[in-house]
Amino acid sequence: MSTPSIKLSSGYEMPLVGFGLWKVNNDTCADQVYNAIKTGYRCFDGACDYGNEVEAGQGVARAIQEGIVKREDLFIVSKLWNSFHDGDRVEPIARKQLADWGIDYFDLYIVHFPIALKYVDPSVRYPPSWTSEDDKLELSNASIQETWTAMETLVDKKLARSIGVSNFSAQLVMDLLRYARIRPATLQIEHHPYLTQTRLVEYAQKEGIAVTAYSSFGPLSFLELDLKDAHSTPLLFEHPVITEIATKHDRTPAQVLLRWSTQRNIAVIPKSNNPTRLAQNLDVTSFDLEAGEIEAIAALDKNLRFNDPIAYGLYVPIF
Amino acid sequence: MSTPSIKLSSGYEMPLVGFGLWKVNNDTCADQVYNAIKTGYRCFDGACDYGNEVEAGQGVARAIQEGIVKREDLFIVSKLWNSFHDGDRVEPIARKQLADWGIDYFDLYIVHFPIALKYVDPSVRYPPSWTSEDDKLELSNASIQETWTAMETLVDKKLARSIGVSNFSAQLVMDLLRYARIRPATLQIEHHPYLTQTRLVEYAQKEGIAVTAYSSFGPLSFLELDLKDAHSTPLLFEHPVITEIATKHDRTPAQVLLRWSTQRNIAVIPKSNNPTRLAQNLDVTSFDLEAGEIEAIAALDKNLRFNDPIAYGLYVPIF
Repeated sequence: MSTPSIKLSSGYEMPLVGFGLWKVNNDTCADQVYNAIKTGYRCFDGACDYGNEVEAGQGVARAIQEGIVKREDLFIVSKLWNSFHDGDRVEPIARKQLADWGIDYFDLYIVHFPIALKYVDPSVRYPPSWTSEDDKLELSNASIQETWTAMETLVDKKLARSIGVSNFSAQLVMDLLRYARIRPATLQIEHHPYLTQTRLVEYAQKEGIAVTAYSSFGPLSFLELDLKDAHSTPLLFEHPVITEIATKHDRTPAQVLLRWSTQRNIAVIPKSNNPTRLAQNLDVTSFDLEAGEIEAIAALDKNLRFNDPIAYGLYVPIF
Repeated sequence: MSTPSIKLSSGYEMPLVGFGLWKVNNDTCADQVYNAIKTGYRCFDGACDYGNEVEAGQGVARAIQEGIVKREDLFIVSKLWNSFHDGDRVEPIARKQLADWGIDYFDLYIVHFPIALKYVDPSVRYPPSWTSEDDKLELSNASIQETWTAMETLVDKKLARSIGVSNFSAQLVMDLLRYARIRPATLQIEHHPYLTQTRLVEYAQKEGIAVTAYSSFGPLSFLELDLKDAHSTPLLFEHPVITEIATKHDRTPAQVLLRWSTQRNIAVIPKSNNPTRLAQNLDVTSFDLEAGEIEAIAALDKNLRFNDPIAYGLYVPIF
């Protein structure tokens, strides 16, 4: 099974469906990645912050060793954490992350948040976090331009084929586009029916920046983080608008939610531990929603964001 | 009558209440400014874009000539229009605007929008607009950093005592603070009970950036622009929450709306053609709202923005 892809401004193709590595446990990560590759996944969305890049790389290595895929069949994504925004910290950490994965280039390397935190050496703490060595939230003075210039160097040195951003607002993307020598290939944002961010999606796509949705299932991903809003909001899997459309198409609610994005050329990065759902999540393009169904789902928008530093108790009011 | 002021990070004091020059007609502008000074106004909020800086300056000159005020008693604000964001265009246009006003420094000079448009020479069209000489919306490649660096030079050259920004989101302010040699003294934003922008206000104030509210009366200012949302939203002057509080305090709804901001140290810049209301708008600090009243007004928030380029038919999705 292969999924369709989006042509990026860098010239490379990014699969429309990837496997998201956020909150994938270290003890199961290698197997999950390996099994996902066997199921047909070719895109893996990781990050320094997820703390499982070594294990993800082990899963990849096993699949390659067994001849299931070649490196060039895969699209491996990772992200620059906030504490490595200083220009001179970008390449060293990217190289460490590549070593962790056991690969020599990322297909896509993304600025995780538009927040520059004070550097903490990986030998002191890794994976990193939101706080400095003193357990305080401390900012660095690296501008986005300084960070982006260093990201561009990763492309020059062939450590990343494409570079992108995540959690950026339109104003910051617009400013970035003024000075970018290499344009961001992708913008990864929280995107689900409760947070459609219609204007931002439209703007990015008009600018030729591919949009990747994270947390496509809305509150579900945040229940285990014990976020208040996640508990008090109806699960999308049980929402009648979603379940009715799912029944009509003989698909799962998850498939409907993913198709709602992919049909608008928005990439998705679900994860699952369950082999059946793993396959279902990948098989999102075998049916089409009607225009009215896409609108009905979009009408659920309530500008409700879950992945917000402030909700985690961190005073970083970026949203 | 004198109004209290806010101490800016630049060390200067900005009156909490100013007279806003947006949509003040050219034929009445000089008289309105002159009369406002006689009524006690000391702060005037102008802009290149408002197209009335010559006439505003005439009103100021008359008041100074008659000995009503001295230049140093006034706090004169103007703004850099989008088409002058290129670094080398900032000082020349600031000098032109100063010449229009007939003064040799601005107390505060503000980046009007975080949008860099293609330069149009003032000899070709002035006041400027959103479109280029070809009547197209065309962007320039000036970054906010390039523009801000030029703004800082205005302070060095004593053409502006303080510099600030307007219509910036938190992400862009945060980035600006990374590289600013001179921090923005103020952030001017649309702020009224239908658009409280609580997080942005809190963030700016925590960073020592004074917040100025524009369009404090909400939809009222936008009726004449024939904006759909302005017509379909209840006027704040007639909203029972506002009128009840006004009655209780024996003040006008306008005074309540302004006090709602000034009591939280947010500057306001109303305008009026009516001498009674002119005086009332200035006299906003002679009473205090109760904490519960401030909250009740804030609870009217519906994240409803009127001053949005997209509402004017311009594809600039900054909000």
